[in-house]
Amino acid sequence: MCCQTLLLEPHNGVLHITLNRPQSRNAMSLQMVSELRAVLADVACDDQVRALVISGAGGHFSAGGDVKDMSGAASHEALRDLNRVFGTLLQELEALPQVVIVVLQGAVLGGGLGLACVSDIAMADHQAQFGLPETSLGLLPAQIAPFVVKRIGLTQARRLALTAARFDGVEAARLGLVHFVEQDAQGLAQRLDEVLDQVLRCAPRANARTKALLLESLGQPLGPVLDQAAQWFAEAVSGEEGIEGTRAFVHKRKPRWAG
Amino acid sequence: MCCQTLLLEPHNGVLHITLNRPQSRNAMSLQMVSELRAVLADVACDDQVRALVISGAGGHFSAGGDVKDMSGAASHEALRDLNRVFGTLLQELEALPQVVIVVLQGAVLGGGLGLACVSDIAMADHQAQFGLPETSLGLLPAQIAPFVVKRIGLTQARRLALTAARFDGVEAARLGLVHFVEQDAQGLAQRLDEVLDQVLRCAPRANARTKALLLESLGQPLGPVLDQAAQWFAEAVSGEEGIEGTRAFVHKRKPRWAG
Amino acid sequence: MCCQTLLLEPHNGVLHITLNRPQSRNAMSLQMVSELRAVLADVACDDQVRALVISGAGGHFSAGGDVKDMSGAASHEALRDLNRVFGTLLQELEALPQVVIVVLQGAVLGGGLGLACVSDIAMADHQAQFGLPETSLGLLPAQIAPFVVKRIGLTQARRLALTAARFDGVEAARLGLVHFVEQDAQGLAQRLDEVLDQVLRCAPRANARTKALLLESLGQPLGPVLDQAAQWFAEAVSGEEGIEGTRAFVHKRKPRWAG
Repeated sequence: MCCQTLLLEPHNGVLHITLNRPQSRNAMSLQMVSELRAVLADVACDDQVRALVISGAGGHFSAGGDVKDMSGAASHEALRDLNRVFGTLLQELEALPQVVIVVLQGAVLGGGLGLACVSDIAMADHQAQFGLPETSLGLLPAQIAPFVVKRIGLTQARRLALTAARFDGVEAARLGLVHFVEQDAQGLAQRLDEVLDQVLRCAPRANARTKALLLESLGQPLGPVLDQAAQWFAEAVSGEEGIEGTRAFVHKRKPRWAG
Repeated sequence: MCCQTLLLEPHNGVLHITLNRPQSRNAMSLQMVSELRAVLADVACDDQVRALVISGAGGHFSAGGDVKDMSGAASHEALRDLNRVFGTLLQELEALPQVVIVVLQGAVLGGGLGLACVSDIAMADHQAQFGLPETSLGLLPAQIAPFVVKRIGLTQARRLALTAARFDGVEAARLGLVHFVEQDAQGLAQRLDEVLDQVLRCAPRANARTKALLLESLGQPLGPVLDQAAQWFAEAVSGEEGIEGTRAFVHKRKPRWAG
Repeated sequence: MCCQTLLLEPHNGVLHITLNRPQSRNAMSLQMVSELRAVLADVACDDQVRALVISGAGGHFSAGGDVKDMSGAASHEALRDLNRVFGTLLQELEALPQVVIVVLQGAVLGGGLGLACVSDIAMADHQAQFGLPETSLGLLPAQIAPFVVKRIGLTQARRLALTAARFDGVEAARLGLVHFVEQDAQGLAQRLDEVLDQVLRCAPRANARTKALLLESLGQPLGPVLDQAAQWFAEAVSGEEGIEGTRAFVHKRKPRWAG
């Protein structure tokens, strides 16, 4: 896979993706969205990838959408589709079976904030700058707003979206947008190691099904979700991972997961 | 518009509403509910109003429903309708296209707490007294409970409603019921200025549509919400606000919004 | 009612239930699940019980499911049903008309965490150990995951479930999983007294209907919930509790609730 806007480094079952347009604070051009979607489509079927780590080059995560694409759109329909495809990217990233981790520094604005909102685990530098600037530009945080509501709830989302207020990593943690806030790049690197250690100790298939279950819990009626969960539980117990996990527990050793 | 229970002061695109029955800590009589609904109906169609600020006269926001109306209700049906209309007021205030800000001091009880729960931005004095006293009086926080759940989640709402516990502004901020907690009236006034500055810097139509989008995100399936959002985004880009916003951004000046 | 895995102590309108298998940190065996369900079925129809307090014997709340039952399950279907019945217990406990309080010490893991998540009021020792260890054993927090999402939201639930991370009582309070965190057993006992005082000051039928209303608010459309609420409000005003509550308020005395 060849990418112009992304750096890809697979390492020890983890795919590290770096948004790599530092000259424009990693603004998400149409090309970047398209390359990200292609990578996700590949990863989704790849048993060897246990987790994804997304960060940005040059000290910023992402300053949001790229205005140049917008001014290049020829028609109302083109503008609409250009906007909608970013929501599709967020839907696909949210549904990824693997654990998605984001490491947030510098600008985490608009679409960059949207990406952060569909991660499983988010960590931020205390000085990172978060915000939804759209309405202060006469625009809407259109594809992003629903994911912000899902992430931090309506009460906080409405203030942020209707004031375009900036906030830092400490506030992002207080709002529950990120799980960890660190003092600097070294702190982020240590936290990332710790979190990856924890994730890799968990069984990959069990984690994928648990993630699916958590996402379904939000919109679906409880009874059928619990029925499905019981079915998956029984399959896990008698499956490879359940057998290895139980054996490791009994022998007081670390389990060895396939993949 | 003539009001007996409300003070109305339009100023610089903002309508300041003061609940004005200080002798009964601004208890929400049927008349006050009815006058509030009439004001909201007018405001909803008024492009000149960008934001609403609701506060209370005499050091209290509102102590809740007015028991005198209740004892005056002649029948079961009258009681039911008297209760239900307060829920209608909350639904209408929640759906208002403009940004709704509440400034909370003193008593913020029962129906007063309900009003606070449908605001976009809430600020409280640290000594404000919040609570749902209904079940300690043998009654139910009937029209209010669903809005409290929407505001702070089921976990916190159930403790507050089933214990009738009082809590102050600091706790209200911790629970996410309000966004800001201040030391005194001067702190509240400064915070209000700051928040209004931010709100007025955002485009009115973009804010109205963003608010609608946020509210829809909660109950509707994601796909159609994102489709609608993309449509609105395209309209915003080529609309008056999008053009002015982009121009102002390029020329590094403040945008000038209509209204 | 005779129980082998539970201690039952009714006292002053409150039923105290102690999970009593200290030799296995109160792991929830099939027998314990079945005895709990039987107790709940009795309590649900018992007007004399105003609240339930659940705690664990021997310094732990509950370490989760009992692996012995699992290894005894003869078939895929047996495993599935064994898992599903725990979800049924959680559904029944959540729907109980009475106020449910949990007192959390030591291990609060897997199914133990699930029980905590359907309580109305939760208090924890600061050193209590919470966690969802399932995927680190190759299994799924199957019946528990949806209740964790409902309790603390998707954002926090996904990190905890996909890392199997342990956390203490202080963190449980920060995440909103518990309402109170205390320094030791004495602190927990004082907090329990205070909370029970508050609960018993509220009218039992009003509390039961308020609880039903709060739970319905989550999944149901707003309009019908508010209609139902208005109906119940009118019934409460003219019912025994409403009359006694108003009278007590007027005479500035404590109300006396039946039951």
